[in-house]
Amino acid sequence: MPKQKASKKIRIALDAMGGDHAPEEIIKGAIAAADDSDLDVVLVGQESVVQEELNKHNPAGCGVSVVHASQVITMEERPVSAVKEKRDSSIVVGVHLLKGGEVAAFVSAGNTGAVMTAASLILGRTKGIHRPALGAVFPFPSGPLLCLDLGASSDCKPMLLAQFAKMGTIYMRMIFGMDSPRIGLLSSGEEDTKGSQLVQKAHRMLRKSKLNFIGNVEGRDIASGRADVIVTDGFTGNVLLKLGEGLGEMLLDSLRKAVAENPKLKEAADLVEPTFKSVISTLDYRQYGGALLFGVKGNVIVAHGRSDADAIRNAIISAKREVSQEVSEAFKG
Amino acid sequence: MPKQKASKKIRIALDAMGGDHAPEEIIKGAIAAADDSDLDVVLVGQESVVQEELNKHNPAGCGVSVVHASQVITMEERPVSAVKEKRDSSIVVGVHLLKGGEVAAFVSAGNTGAVMTAASLILGRTKGIHRPALGAVFPFPSGPLLCLDLGASSDCKPMLLAQFAKMGTIYMRMIFGMDSPRIGLLSSGEEDTKGSQLVQKAHRMLRKSKLNFIGNVEGRDIASGRADVIVTDGFTGNVLLKLGEGLGEMLLDSLRKAVAENPKLKEAADLVEPTFKSVISTLDYRQYGGALLFGVKGNVIVAHGRSDADAIRNAIISAKREVSQEVSEAFKG
Repeated sequence: MPKQKASKKIRIALDAMGGDHAPEEIIKGAIAAADDSDLDVVLVGQESVVQEELNKHNPAGCGVSVVHASQVITMEERPVSAVKEKRDSSIVVGVHLLKGGEVAAFVSAGNTGAVMTAASLILGRTKGIHRPALGAVFPFPSGPLLCLDLGASSDCKPMLLAQFAKMGTIYMRMIFGMDSPRIGLLSSGEEDTKGSQLVQKAHRMLRKSKLNFIGNVEGRDIASGRADVIVTDGFTGNVLLKLGEGLGEMLLDSLRKAVAENPKLKEAADLVEPTFKSVISTLDYRQYGGALLFGVKGNVIVAHGRSDADAIRNAIISAKREVSQEVSEAFKG
Repeated sequence: MPKQKASKKIRIALDAMGGDHAPEEIIKGAIAAADDSDLDVVLVGQESVVQEELNKHNPAGCGVSVVHASQVITMEERPVSAVKEKRDSSIVVGVHLLKGGEVAAFVSAGNTGAVMTAASLILGRTKGIHRPALGAVFPFPSGPLLCLDLGASSDCKPMLLAQFAKMGTIYMRMIFGMDSPRIGLLSSGEEDTKGSQLVQKAHRMLRKSKLNFIGNVEGRDIASGRADVIVTDGFTGNVLLKLGEGLGEMLLDSLRKAVAENPKLKEAADLVEPTFKSVISTLDYRQYGGALLFGVKGNVIVAHGRSDADAIRNAIISAKREVSQEVSEAFKG
């Protein structure tokens, strides 16, 4: 791979082997993203496989290059052992490109746990952060909401939730210029005593912190605008995220069924569908490009495992934005 | 209170002091439910307060009687100590009426933890069940789905999730005549190795069980019809439940805003709104009447804390149905 550090282009590494639709859709997404003349995409994966796909769609290879990685970490593999054993996997090689400064960001739709583990081990963690979190900003009608963790750390200690709150505060301050972002702790009730043992302990820690902690928030507050940042463990965050997607699909399906049963509704449904689709799309961060891995020293973007070419393109564009806004600089310390 | 055991009417005790809108809305709901000539509602609470409300709306007291309970357990109180200390609270007195056979069911929109604790201590738990679960059946377009736990047991052990799965199997067999209900375990990924430590351990237990365990399901499967029963811990279940409500409200708000900005949409919105409202209402179990407390020896229905008169009426009607179908008999063993 030719080094182009002198170029003003932003170079982004993409895991060509990660995701349910790899490598076809991933490579199509890379080609689409590389249409942007400010962007170079480095495809990381098994060279023969990647090159074959690339030849189908972009034989000239404009804006796209390939770095060979002989191994693939599957979705089923246990993250820590996979990262340790498969040192020539697309995930490990991609993160090393980032560590070495060859690229400014790494994007993967592969095994989230493996991406997180590789990023933690190779890039190192932000000072004071015990484990990383996946965060995404949801552009709700009530305002942008950062949710973290969406699935990096399934089992959290109370201290970790407090760390996520701190990172969320820094991020919303930097990106949205909020002086004092309102932090909510996701729980099963607003009262201080509600929630799991984990949440009750995290609540007490956050009360003592200097953050603008507004207390517990409930599932219904996610779209209500009460908080700017909602903090939760990665298990709950991930389940919630996928529920949002599922409910959106169910609502659109129901509208289609109602139209099928009563064709008179068709015109009305066509008129309101864009409104619903735009609201439902706010629940699906794939549509505006992946989640950021908070708490590691570098821009790592995790795309949805089910990403198609459009989703990958959006994740790469999102990575470019994170690079331009120097987000990771704030977490390098 | 006159004992009416010889009557064919179903007597249901209602916590008049529990819920955000107690006692006004609770008592209005009781009066509405008592319109059903097969039903007697026993209001449990501070007699003077209850009687005053009752006089406003139903001075004749048809179908409604009052049992005095001098104390009130608030939403903020810690369940175990509240139940032990407030022996003359509406929750404790109501559960005692059920235990004594004076009523066939107890309904409360009060402190869920306190209702659960009182039911466990006073009625006793179903054999082999370590802690109760709140379950509700969601009438999704893809079929009925029983979700449990929705908030009774925030911190669960793996064994408990397996017990919930067993109770869910019995319930769906009894109520919906399913031979072999499909059990899904809510997780952050379909793969066996995904999820929190709790879920991974529960997964291994369920694999070894004789239940029809279909493996992990994700948030998006909740409305997909993949499973008949979805099992989760009470913390996750409660957060999910409230997210569903919040998203439904957000979608309807967005439609209203779109109409305000573009009045041409009004006619179309009016036409499709009933379809959306009916889908959204499936996410809100209040609308079809409370959640059942699984794993205690008796019919205990927990209504939403925010219940209004309609919701309370529905919860009472739901309790009547549980009584008629002899649901609790299956869990008395």
